[in-house]
Amino acid sequence: MYKLVLMRHGESQWNLENRFTGWADVDLTDKGREEARKAGDLLKAEGYRFDVAYTSVLKRAIRTLWIALDQMDQMWLPVVHAWRLNERHYGDLQGLNKSETAAKFGEEQVLIWRRAYAIAPNPLKIDDPRFAGNDPRYAKLKPEEIPLTECLKDTVDRVIPLWKEGIAPAIKAGKQVLIAAHGNSLRALIKYLDNLSEEDILKVNIPTARPLVYELDENLKPIRHYYLGDQAEIEAAMAAVKNQGKAK
Amino acid sequence: MYKLVLMRHGESQWNLENRFTGWADVDLTDKGREEARKAGDLLKAEGYRFDVAYTSVLKRAIRTLWIALDQMDQMWLPVVHAWRLNERHYGDLQGLNKSETAAKFGEEQVLIWRRAYAIAPNPLKIDDPRFAGNDPRYAKLKPEEIPLTECLKDTVDRVIPLWKEGIAPAIKAGKQVLIAAHGNSLRALIKYLDNLSEEDILKVNIPTARPLVYELDENLKPIRHYYLGDQAEIEAAMAAVKNQGKAK
Repeated sequence: MYKLVLMRHGESQWNLENRFTGWADVDLTDKGREEARKAGDLLKAEGYRFDVAYTSVLKRAIRTLWIALDQMDQMWLPVVHAWRLNERHYGDLQGLNKSETAAKFGEEQVLIWRRAYAIAPNPLKIDDPRFAGNDPRYAKLKPEEIPLTECLKDTVDRVIPLWKEGIAPAIKAGKQVLIAAHGNSLRALIKYLDNLSEEDILKVNIPTARPLVYELDENLKPIRHYYLGDQAEIEAAMAAVKNQGKAK
Repeated sequence: MYKLVLMRHGESQWNLENRFTGWADVDLTDKGREEARKAGDLLKAEGYRFDVAYTSVLKRAIRTLWIALDQMDQMWLPVVHAWRLNERHYGDLQGLNKSETAAKFGEEQVLIWRRAYAIAPNPLKIDDPRFAGNDPRYAKLKPEEIPLTECLKDTVDRVIPLWKEGIAPAIKAGKQVLIAAHGNSLRALIKYLDNLSEEDILKVNIPTARPLVYELDENLKPIRHYYLGDQAEIEAAMAAVKNQGKAK
């Protein structure tokens, strides 16, 4: 039996401001850093030790990982920075306040953009300063791999190759793997692992910086999963994520 | 022509306390963190951008790198954590105060241990808590690769394979490389690159967290090298390193 630990980044500045973030490289708030510290302390206290970590190329996930590794005294751990673990690209919504967008387009439309499996927001134009194609961290991507917008289905399609070609072989080789990523890239992975329907994955709300343990059988099929830490506090954090899209 | 940037870690707690550190995993002081921030700011201001970074598995080098990458907004950079870039192992001296050791063994003996090319301090015993063989970060090393003590020659012998098999090919492939490491692992590399004699390398004193740029020809032979930043300040920092072994 294998164990895999997933962790969403701590609160970011745009989580706090309730703005659509996507591939925008927004940093953690002080609260987000504190969440990451707690996650590292919790993993250490529960005896988790890792052999390799996977994260995105976005600093809110990387910093969450760094802080947790620091708390665990595992700063030396090999880390794979993978664009495939980036947050879902939010297209033309990136940077907009969710409540303002809800007021403008209606709460229902925002909920569709946030939660419909195969409907993406309007795409960025290539001359938009938010376009990722001019950023050196994406220099090795093929043009068709650089998103202009994504629905969750698109995110699943680009996360799973990393699972199949990188993470799953590492786990099968006996490595203890930690993944520090984003709400929707983790959802993409969870949909695949738990074989969830398009409807069911949309009901999964992942709280920030709470270690989520997956126990996997020899074929990497989930046996069970659970969050480490105080369960009531985690329930409250999941409810807060669910309510983010509502107009204020 | 290629450029390579070397950087020694910022001041560590045991630099401050004037203790032999070696493979002990001592953290940076606040001053060391500030030095790392300045180094990152300087690299950014001078227009340096990297494709890959190499560092040791010791937190004073890793944290120096992390802080510098953070300042440069390159947290997403691929990082190779290599035990071969660790500081020279100081054997049985690890943890001892340099001034106390000088008072006990004589300043000359300490200078020999610190600066003689092929004379190592007394080795650790395998049941010593300072022995690295029980630390998971060294689990993949062959038993004969785990040092009990090292002279600078030993450090050269284990640094250069990483240069030949990892770093040099990366540079030749056009990658901009940053190496964040330690006084003696960087000396080992400099001895090799500049083809210095055993005597001459002992005169090279590398200040903490000052970016050292090597310009290399197409065969990776050095054309010239220079420190970035205020030159008078760097001279003073080099003199301070040189005086560390003297009894107080």
